[in-house]
Amino acid sequence: MKILAIETSSRAGSAALMEEDRLIGESYLDGGLTHSQTALPMAQQVLRLAGTAWREVDAFAVSVGPGSFTGLRIGIATVKGLADAQEKPCYGISTLEGLAWNLAGFAGWICPVLDARCGQIYTALFYGDGERVLRRGEDLAMAAAQRLEELCALEGPIWLVGDGAKLCYDGWKSRLPGLRLAPAALRQQRASSLAAAALAGAAVPVPADQLAPVYLRRPQAERERLAKLQQEGAEL
Amino acid sequence: MKILAIETSSRAGSAALMEEDRLIGESYLDGGLTHSQTALPMAQQVLRLAGTAWREVDAFAVSVGPGSFTGLRIGIATVKGLADAQEKPCYGISTLEGLAWNLAGFAGWICPVLDARCGQIYTALFYGDGERVLRRGEDLAMAAAQRLEELCALEGPIWLVGDGAKLCYDGWKSRLPGLRLAPAALRQQRASSLAAAALAGAAVPVPADQLAPVYLRRPQAERERLAKLQQEGAEL
Repeated sequence: MKILAIETSSRAGSAALMEEDRLIGESYLDGGLTHSQTALPMAQQVLRLAGTAWREVDAFAVSVGPGSFTGLRIGIATVKGLADAQEKPCYGISTLEGLAWNLAGFAGWICPVLDARCGQIYTALFYGDGERVLRRGEDLAMAAAQRLEELCALEGPIWLVGDGAKLCYDGWKSRLPGLRLAPAALRQQRASSLAAAALAGAAVPVPADQLAPVYLRRPQAERERLAKLQQEGAEL
Repeated sequence: MKILAIETSSRAGSAALMEEDRLIGESYLDGGLTHSQTALPMAQQVLRLAGTAWREVDAFAVSVGPGSFTGLRIGIATVKGLADAQEKPCYGISTLEGLAWNLAGFAGWICPVLDARCGQIYTALFYGDGERVLRRGEDLAMAAAQRLEELCALEGPIWLVGDGAKLCYDGWKSRLPGLRLAPAALRQQRASSLAAAALAGAAVPVPADQLAPVYLRRPQAERERLAKLQQEGAEL
């Protein structure tokens, strides 16, 4: 099965084509142009260089969150368009699970960390047995300090991965001797990891119209509106 | 320091732009068009998407072998042209050392294996301490059976990486319980690993005109010619 994956949930964007145990092609960019300018062109370039036609793609994978609200919508909208036109199945993969799959082959705990601002992180917990990546905790938005306390109860190496990994590593390493920082080339989201997660059964394939972003928190505009409404209610 | 790396030593070709601890962009293709059609366009695309001009690249890295004779020449010639025009330094990285850097962050022995045909492999030995990749043996062409015997003397996990990894894994795993196969997305040569190896000091930078391929064996045409000459000599 050939899977085309698109990852636009964060600053780093990428597109990858994978067939079972073989990564055929990947285009990756951390910074530079915006996802709306790069997501589809990167996917097109991967297919063109690989000499693969759209009709030869059997399924699509995309990260469905947590992540940048706009970024997630760009990736999901692109995949919906590509998949719906051809009636191909779609795998909506947790951004955090995709990140954990960057470290497939590593042994130990894998803790993806995305910076959610205001001392909050998006995080989950996985365990790498040297081959597979096994989920050991659900996707959550929580205070970074709380996650640190939870990690202190674990034994063995703990790998941090994601755009919040460096910040947490610097802040936590004195308390956690087993803490490790993912290598630079594997620290940000990668489309190839979404494809690998999909091939390993991390999600059930759905028709394109059922793909939807998973938000662990309401968008900032809604949060501010709610806070304002609550304040006004309290003042009445 | 911004390094642009080009990897064309084998079937998988790639170009990557890396700055210190950050992979800015990478384009990777395993199969499809030939390196002579893709090496420079992939490098150009990475720079274009990243909004980086050629003059902003501080140094170049390229794999210098072992590998495909033609592939190595394409990569080296491309980098020579780019670097010489701008008088930028070049890092010629062993293909096997680059492969080992695919597994930066892994703990245990790392044994890159390239299929050299006729029961022979190109191989070397490295040790991953969970952060760095440390060389523990030189690049060699040898019989696969000999390498197996040597690996049997090692303790702990042994990671196989490279285009010969799957074949050796299938043949050796019954004798080596600690044997592991690198994850699919990290199994073939990657330009980002050349850049990481260069940044970690795996080679001394040289001017473009001093870059040269390192062949562990003579080209097949030369080997056949030598064998023919020897045979003729014996018959005289």
